[in-house]
Amino acid sequence: MSPDRLSTTFAALADPTRRAILARLVSGQVSVTELAAPFEMSMPAISKHLKVLEHAGLIARGREAQWRPCRLEAGPLKNVAEWVENYRAFWEQSFDRLDDYLRELKMKEKKHVRKQRKN
Amino acid sequence: MSPDRLSTTFAALADPTRRAILARLVSGQVSVTELAAPFEMSMPAISKHLKVLEHAGLIARGREAQWRPCRLEAGPLKNVAEWVENYRAFWEQSFDRLDDYLRELKMKEKKHVRKQRKN
Repeated sequence: MSPDRLSTTFAALADPTRRAILARLVSGQVSVTELAAPFEMSMPAISKHLKVLEHAGLIARGREAQWRPCRLEAGPLKNVAEWVENYRAFWEQSFDRLDDYLRELKMKEKKHVRKQRKN
Repeated sequence: MSPDRLSTTFAALADPTRRAILARLVSGQVSVTELAAPFEMSMPAISKHLKVLEHAGLIARGREAQWRPCRLEAGPLKNVAEWVENYRAFWEQSFDRLDDYLRELKMKEKKHVRKQRKN
């Protein structure tokens, strides 16, 4: 099966360094040197991560010869949000059921304590 | 770097078959045989995908000896939604800027057409 767009996005996001790079770019474009600074990583290692992000369309690079700043691209992140939104009703229900269950457990516990006090 | 929870989730989601399995489970728990039916895949191939999803906590399997139905688990999907939500302001701004730019282009085009008609 040929890698579809969303799979490429998710694969690119499956790495903490790459997610940290994206987080850094939220506030604006940054040069590769600045981007690499907080990571204990070689420049080739950082460049590899940037290539994965660029290939996934999560970042774009400026065309200025020397200073090729990276910037965050909005499209793929929006697609992730839209995909996961399909499951919102499901997890809200699940957590509601968990809440109900915990409330029930608490009630049972209270009844149990009261019963013990009476005896 | 040890694979963190969110990376494991994203890696599991980086496959169209696995996402299709999750979509199938939204409506309730399903046996592996039923789950495999719409895919042109061997049972071992489906089992491998299920193992990846189970390892990522995206699905859970029943403990009944013969019929071990799969069900969707809400937690990791909620974590993905929370993660991507951090970027909402960013992509909304980006699309607003794109809208402004397109509106500007349209205005320029209209002016250009009017000018041509006058001449």
